[in-house]
Amino acid sequence: MTRERLYLYDTTLRDGQQTQGVQFSTAEKLRIAEALDRLGVDHIEGGWPGANPTDSAFFEEVGQTRATLTAFGMTKRAGRSAENDDVLAAVMNAGTASVCLVGKTHDFHVTTALGITLEENVENIRASVAHLVAQGREALLDAEHFFDGYKANPAYALDCLKAAQAAGARWIVLCDTNGGTLPHEIGQIVGAVIAAGIPGERLGIHTHNDTENAVAGTLAAVDAGVRQIQGTLNGLGERCGNANLTSLIPTLLLKEPYASRYQTGVTMEALEGLTRTSRMLDDILNRVPMRQMAYVGSSAFAHKAGLHASAILKDPTTYEHVDPGVVGNRRVVPMSNQAGQSNLRRRLAEAGLEVEPGNPALARILDLIKTREAEGYSYDTAQASFELLARSELGLLPEFFEVKRYRVAVERRKNKYDRMVSLSEAVVVVKVDGEKKLSVSESMDEEGCDRGPVNALSKALAKDLGRYQALIDDMRLVDFKVRITQGGTEAVTRVIIDSEDGEGRRWATVGVSANIVDASFEALLDAVRWKLVRAGA
Amino acid sequence: MTRERLYLYDTTLRDGQQTQGVQFSTAEKLRIAEALDRLGVDHIEGGWPGANPTDSAFFEEVGQTRATLTAFGMTKRAGRSAENDDVLAAVMNAGTASVCLVGKTHDFHVTTALGITLEENVENIRASVAHLVAQGREALLDAEHFFDGYKANPAYALDCLKAAQAAGARWIVLCDTNGGTLPHEIGQIVGAVIAAGIPGERLGIHTHNDTENAVAGTLAAVDAGVRQIQGTLNGLGERCGNANLTSLIPTLLLKEPYASRYQTGVTMEALEGLTRTSRMLDDILNRVPMRQMAYVGSSAFAHKAGLHASAILKDPTTYEHVDPGVVGNRRVVPMSNQAGQSNLRRRLAEAGLEVEPGNPALARILDLIKTREAEGYSYDTAQASFELLARSELGLLPEFFEVKRYRVAVERRKNKYDRMVSLSEAVVVVKVDGEKKLSVSESMDEEGCDRGPVNALSKALAKDLGRYQALIDDMRLVDFKVRITQGGTEAVTRVIIDSEDGEGRRWATVGVSANIVDASFEALLDAVRWKLVRAGA
Repeated sequence: MTRERLYLYDTTLRDGQQTQGVQFSTAEKLRIAEALDRLGVDHIEGGWPGANPTDSAFFEEVGQTRATLTAFGMTKRAGRSAENDDVLAAVMNAGTASVCLVGKTHDFHVTTALGITLEENVENIRASVAHLVAQGREALLDAEHFFDGYKANPAYALDCLKAAQAAGARWIVLCDTNGGTLPHEIGQIVGAVIAAGIPGERLGIHTHNDTENAVAGTLAAVDAGVRQIQGTLNGLGERCGNANLTSLIPTLLLKEPYASRYQTGVTMEALEGLTRTSRMLDDILNRVPMRQMAYVGSSAFAHKAGLHASAILKDPTTYEHVDPGVVGNRRVVPMSNQAGQSNLRRRLAEAGLEVEPGNPALARILDLIKTREAEGYSYDTAQASFELLARSELGLLPEFFEVKRYRVAVERRKNKYDRMVSLSEAVVVVKVDGEKKLSVSESMDEEGCDRGPVNALSKALAKDLGRYQALIDDMRLVDFKVRITQGGTEAVTRVIIDSEDGEGRRWATVGVSANIVDASFEALLDAVRWKLVRAGA
Repeated sequence: MTRERLYLYDTTLRDGQQTQGVQFSTAEKLRIAEALDRLGVDHIEGGWPGANPTDSAFFEEVGQTRATLTAFGMTKRAGRSAENDDVLAAVMNAGTASVCLVGKTHDFHVTTALGITLEENVENIRASVAHLVAQGREALLDAEHFFDGYKANPAYALDCLKAAQAAGARWIVLCDTNGGTLPHEIGQIVGAVIAAGIPGERLGIHTHNDTENAVAGTLAAVDAGVRQIQGTLNGLGERCGNANLTSLIPTLLLKEPYASRYQTGVTMEALEGLTRTSRMLDDILNRVPMRQMAYVGSSAFAHKAGLHASAILKDPTTYEHVDPGVVGNRRVVPMSNQAGQSNLRRRLAEAGLEVEPGNPALARILDLIKTREAEGYSYDTAQASFELLARSELGLLPEFFEVKRYRVAVERRKNKYDRMVSLSEAVVVVKVDGEKKLSVSESMDEEGCDRGPVNALSKALAKDLGRYQALIDDMRLVDFKVRITQGGTEAVTRVIIDSEDGEGRRWATVGVSANIVDASFEALLDAVRWKLVRAGA
C-alpha cells in the first residue's frame, strides 16, 4: 500500500524563540538547523529577516540544507504595493526558496488590531502571495487566528484563505493562534475548509498548547485531512508552547493508523537520534531536560512502581508502549534492585571496563553515585567523571599528580586610557613524580579579551605536568555549563566542562561546590585525568 | 438546562507519588489533601495502606474531608478468599468510605505477569468487589491495561468489567496503563464498552501522558460517555505522568461544550485558587514551576512577540483564550527585542516612568536593548536592569557612587589538618560624595562554608556606601543564575541575580561578560542601584 506523504514544518527558530527567556544567538540557530536537517524535517523556518539582527545573520550564514529554508514575515501593509513594502522586502532579501507570511483571517482582528477594512485585508493577502509567486518563491500563508475567525465569521475567514489559494499559495496554514480551540473543533473546522474547496494537500496545521491539547489538535487536523504539520522541538513557543514535534514524530512513525497510512521525511534511523536532539536543545538553552517528556524524557521509560518494575524484568512490553531504543531513549529501573547493577555493568563496559557480576565494587559504586547525586553531582552527562569514579573504586586509577594548592585573582581597574579593564591571574602548584611545580597563567586571550578566572586556571593547570605534559598538549576546553542546584539543603554550583583533543575525542566532566571557581577546578582536574587515562599514562 | 454531573478523582497522592524523584512525607500528603479538598475534587486517593508506611500514617492522621477519601489496593490473590487476603485486609483497615482495587483485564498480563488462569482472575475481581460491597464500602475497580486488553481480547476484557459490575462496583475505571492509546481509540473503545451494557454513569477514565495526549484522551472518553475523570495535580505520575487535572479542570469549567453540558464539584471561586494550588505542589516538591504549563504556568499569559504584545494593549482577547484572572494567573508582557514602542511605554509606566509617545528616548532605548541582547543580555526576566537602562537614557538615573576598582582572590590549599580548604577575599573601592572608600570581605558563611568569590564581592560592595549605606542594609541576594551564551561571535557568561529587601520587594538584574566574576559584579551593581532608586536616594 502506498503511504501518503505528510510534511513536517519546524518553527523552533521562529515561534520557538517566542518562548519567555529564550533568545538564540546566530551560532545556536545554526546548530539547531543542522540538527533539524539531520532529523529530516521538510521545512526549517529560520526567523523574521529584518526584524531581528540574529535572524538576518542566520540566513546569511546558513549553508546548504536538505530541508527547505523558509523566511517568516507578514503580508504587505495597506496603502502600498507589495513591491514597495520595506518590511516585506527585508524578508524577500533573505533569498530563501520558501516564504511564509502571516495574514489575518479573523474579522475582529482586521478591524481592531490592524484598523483597516475587511476588503483591504483580503487584498493584502492576495497581493502578497502573488508577489512571492511572481518572484519564484514557494508561498505559505500563515492564517492567523483562523479557528477563532472561522467561529466568528466563517465566510470571511474562508474568503481570506481562498484569496491566498487563488494567488498560488503552496500551503495555507490554519493557525490556532490563541491556543484555545479543542481537538474536536479543530477536526470539524478542517473538514469544513476542505468541503469549501481547499484540498488537504494544500493545508497545514499550527496549534498551541494553552489547554495541553496541541499534539491532539494536530492529530485531529491530520485525521481531517491536512498534510503539513507545524511544530517545534520540545514544544518551545509563545506562552504554553507550540505543538511538540518531539512527541508528534514518534507517534506518526510508530502508532496506527499513522504509521501505515503516512510517510514523513524522518527515517527510522533518524528517529533514533530524537532523544539526543531534544537534549541538545536543552543543553543550548541551559535548561534541565524535563524528565516527563513523552518518548524522550529521562523518566519516559522509568519504572518505579514495584509491581511494574518486576513485571518489566519478565517482559518489557508489559509496561512499555514502545521500545525506548527506537527513539534513542533508554529504560530506567531503580538502582536499588538487581537491574541497577546490570545497568551499571553495561555502562562500565561502554567505558571499556569489564566487571564480573557480583563484584562488591559494583554496590559501592552505586552507593557512591547516589550520595554524590544527592550532593548535586550529575553523572548522566558527565560520563568521563563517572568513569573516573568507577575506576577509583575498582583500583584502576593511577594518581598521576597531586594538586597542592591554587590561587586565582580577578581584578578590575581603570587602565591608563581611563577605561575599566579586567584581568585574572592563576597560580597552580602540583607535585609530579616527587617534584613540585609552580605554574602561572593569565586570562587574556590572543585578541586581548579577558576570558576570566576559569580560563586562567585551566591554562595554569595544563602548563607543566612534567612527563605527562606532552600527553595533554592537544586538549582544549570547548564548553562550560554552570547551573545552580541543590546539594543537600544548600544551593551549590554545578559545573560541567566539555573537552576535546586532537584525535576528535570529546568528553564531559563535572564539579560541584558552593564556590563556582572551586567547582570549575574540580571539573578541569577530572578532564585532565580522564585524558591521561585514555592516553595510557 | 440541567447540567450533568462529572466526577473528579484525584490520584496525586498515589499515582503521583510514582513520579521519579517524588516521595511525599505524611505531613506533605496532609497539606496536599487539604488543598485538593478546598479545590473541590470528589475523591482523594490517599495511597496504598499497608504497602507504604507514610500511606498508612496518612489515613490515620487525615481528618474530615468534603471529598471521599479512597484507599488503593489490589484484588485478592488466587488461592485464598477475599476475607483471608492479608494485603486486601490492610487496605480495608484504613477504614475509608471508598476503596479502589486494581485488577487485570488484559489476558496476556493475567497469564504472563500473574501466572493464573483467565477464570481465576475474573473470580478474583468478582469476589474482591463483592467483599468491599459486603463491608459497606463504595467499590471501584481500576481496570489495569484495559485498552490494550480490549484490543487484544475484547470479550475477555469486557468479562472482567462485567464481573465487577455484577458484584456491585460503583465505578469501573478504564485505565490506559502504558499510556500508548491515542484519543480516537479511547473514544471508540469507550463507545464499545457502553454499547456492551456498562453505562457511562459507572465508568471512569485513567490515562497517562506517554504520547502527550493524556488530557485529550480523557476528553475523548468524556465525549464518549464516561463520567469520572482520574488525574493528578500538575500531571505528576509514573513515567510521563497522569492526566493533568490542572489543565482539565479549567477546560471543563470554561470551554464548550463542557461548560454548558456538565457540572463538577469545583466552583468558579475555587478555580481562582488553581494557580496557587499548582505552585504549592511545586513548592512541596522543591521544583521550579514549569513556566509553560497550560492555564497556570507563569508564561501561560506572557506575550513576547511584538505584534501580539501591541494588540494585547488594545484588547486582551486578541491573544488570550481565557482571562488569566479566572484561574488565578496573570498577564505578562516582557521586554524583548521584538517589543514595540507602545509596549515599552507600558513597561516604563509600570516602573513609574510616564513617557509621552514620540519621545526620541524611546527609540534609543529600544535600540540599546536590541544591541545589548545581541551581546548576550536578556531583559525578559531582568526587569530592574531594564528600568535602569531606560532611566539612564531618560536622564533619570543619579550616579550615586563610582566603582574605582575591585579585586577578588580565590585560594585553595591544605589547612593545618591536611584538608583542602578554600577561601575567597574581595576588595571593592568606591568613591561616594568625593570620598574614596575601601571595603574588604571574605566568603565564609556563619557555618564556616566558603560561598565563593561572588558572595565575597557582594558583601564588600554593600559594606560601606557612605550616606547610602542605611538604604541598602535590608537587601539580600536570594538567587543567582548563570548561563553561557553567545555574545556576538564569542561565548560569554550571563548572570541573573535576584535580590530581596525588608519590604518584600524582589527584583532581578543582569550582567554579561566573558569573565563570570565580572558579569556577576555588573548584576550586583545594578541590584544596588535599583534599590537606591526605589529608596528615593
